[in-house]
Amino acid sequence: MSDKVSLAEKLASFTDQWKPRIVAGYNGNDVMVVRLEGPFQWHKHDETDDFFLVLDGVLDIELRDRIVTLGPGELFVVPRGIEHRPVARQGEVKVMLIEPAGTPNTGDPATAVEKPRI
Amino acid sequence: MSDKVSLAEKLASFTDQWKPRIVAGYNGNDVMVVRLEGPFQWHKHDETDDFFLVLDGVLDIELRDRIVTLGPGELFVVPRGIEHRPVARQGEVKVMLIEPAGTPNTGDPATAVEKPRI
Repeated sequence: MSDKVSLAEKLASFTDQWKPRIVAGYNGNDVMVVRLEGPFQWHKHDETDDFFLVLDGVLDIELRDRIVTLGPGELFVVPRGIEHRPVARQGEVKVMLIEPAGTPNTGDPATAVEKPRI
Repeated sequence: MSDKVSLAEKLASFTDQWKPRIVAGYNGNDVMVVRLEGPFQWHKHDETDDFFLVLDGVLDIELRDRIVTLGPGELFVVPRGIEHRPVARQGEVKVMLIEPAGTPNTGDPATAVEKPRI
């Protein structure tokens, strides 16, 4: 059985951005932390919802018809199939993500980054 | 599509303890917030892992062979089938939970509380 996870400790163990780290598993989902800054790319996940919880900083989740702005302690679930683009416009943001294990972060395995477990 | 969720705002909207509120959905799971104080009962979920993220306060998750103590920003996933007992020994704790929709909080539908969506 895994031990407890301090999200702050895990985030302090790396500095690179846009590379999620897996910190726990839940029913076949990866619980991840990531540092984000600037814009990501527009993408969608046809097979899964996409869970964002901001831990520190401010994150815009752009949708095609509006922008959802998240501060610390705020979460948003992008429904499957919905195009979205995370953008951190106010410096670095620390985020907890949940996705089914193996989900490509870009929505496309060809362009997705590897997500190490830490 | 749902709007964003402020965990603090949701927690401020009720005061009773041990009654989780559903604040979001993710792939058939309920994302919930709850106020806990004192001991819960020993129980297990044979069909699902049990996700705890402490937002405020200190929570002991007692297992049969050890105690996992969580502070703010710390999470623990109790694997399916593992007996556990959450105990808040140091005043009220605010927690985010994730479980598949319909999971009885006690592990037994006969004793489970209803979880309102707020």
